[in-house]
Amino acid sequence: MLTLHHLLIGRALFTLWLVEELEAPHELKIYHRDPATMRAPMELRAVHPLGKAPIIEDGPVTLAESGAITTWLLTRYRSDRVLVPDSSDPQLWANYLYWLHYPEGSAFLPLLMELLMMRSAARPEPFATFAAGEVPLHLDHMVEGLGDRDYLLGAQISGADFGFAYIVSLAGRLGLLGSRPTLLAYLQRVTSRPACQRAMEKTGERI
Amino acid sequence: MLTLHHLLIGRALFTLWLVEELEAPHELKIYHRDPATMRAPMELRAVHPLGKAPIIEDGPVTLAESGAITTWLLTRYRSDRVLVPDSSDPQLWANYLYWLHYPEGSAFLPLLMELLMMRSAARPEPFATFAAGEVPLHLDHMVEGLGDRDYLLGAQISGADFGFAYIVSLAGRLGLLGSRPTLLAYLQRVTSRPACQRAMEKTGERI
Repeated sequence: MLTLHHLLIGRALFTLWLVEELEAPHELKIYHRDPATMRAPMELRAVHPLGKAPIIEDGPVTLAESGAITTWLLTRYRSDRVLVPDSSDPQLWANYLYWLHYPEGSAFLPLLMELLMMRSAARPEPFATFAAGEVPLHLDHMVEGLGDRDYLLGAQISGADFGFAYIVSLAGRLGLLGSRPTLLAYLQRVTSRPACQRAMEKTGERI
Repeated sequence: MLTLHHLLIGRALFTLWLVEELEAPHELKIYHRDPATMRAPMELRAVHPLGKAPIIEDGPVTLAESGAITTWLLTRYRSDRVLVPDSSDPQLWANYLYWLHYPEGSAFLPLLMELLMMRSAARPEPFATFAAGEVPLHLDHMVEGLGDRDYLLGAQISGADFGFAYIVSLAGRLGLLGSRPTLLAYLQRVTSRPACQRAMEKTGERI
């Protein structure tokens, strides 16, 4: 049995959405952030030492890290609905690998800095200068990466879109998408998918 | 032909080390950080829009993101020397996926905050509190993840060790490994490997 340890509000929604796309039977365990600190509750550390979400349990295996979970789920519960390129098409496969790692490997860091500065209503150095340079660089890169395609790799959604949609949605929550209609349209496209709507209905979250 | 775009000093060394383990023929292009800002030079943006390193070019493909590059290299230049588990052993495969994503997906962020605070000799909130909680949590997690094994997955080095060695070495450069002999011994084990020594000799870097 697949169990999803889900934290409101955050990236775990995008793992649940993937599970819904794959129509994989699962149990959902929902956790709430500490209202004072907005951090994950300590009870998640009993599931995984870092106490972050998402975490999945699948039989005897417990797994964290969104990108790792994506690969796990797409291998174990493969569906024709979600594209997973392999090395037979080198350019497509390279794009897939890149965008699979990019959200948490590069884009999240400056966005988290923005989030922390907005919450604290302070923009201290050297973080303010770092984020001021990196945030627009990454948003422009996301626009360019998507181009005029519906999803990152083309007309079909792929495993790389779930992490990408998370960071686009995070940028949206931070109010950074105003001048980037490509990314706003992408979020609308994502949220119109029935599997994404089921995920949002189950947790009460919005993208 | 494989080309490595290498930035002194940083994570690119760990990609070069992997290439040396795989004995893959390659060309090395070395770039230097801006001495005032310690950031990558703008010329790297002509290779990849974000202008970070490592970046590889392999035939017509240009690829960034360390974890993505690791998977690419291990698929194209496979060697019995470096373990790459697959889904036939679920627990080993889950461990591999986790540690492949963890360095850039989770551990780098608080370490970069520490690095920026050390360079600027200031510890502003809310970053100081964030890093004070996260850095020891991650260092303890790395110690626990390694356990009493020589490498992350056992006696043999795997594709997950290259990114892990980078963040352990970064923690070492920040002076954070004093009370963690497990991680210091791991770095010694890594740097005693002939392939790692060849990589360090080629760039003049030390781990």
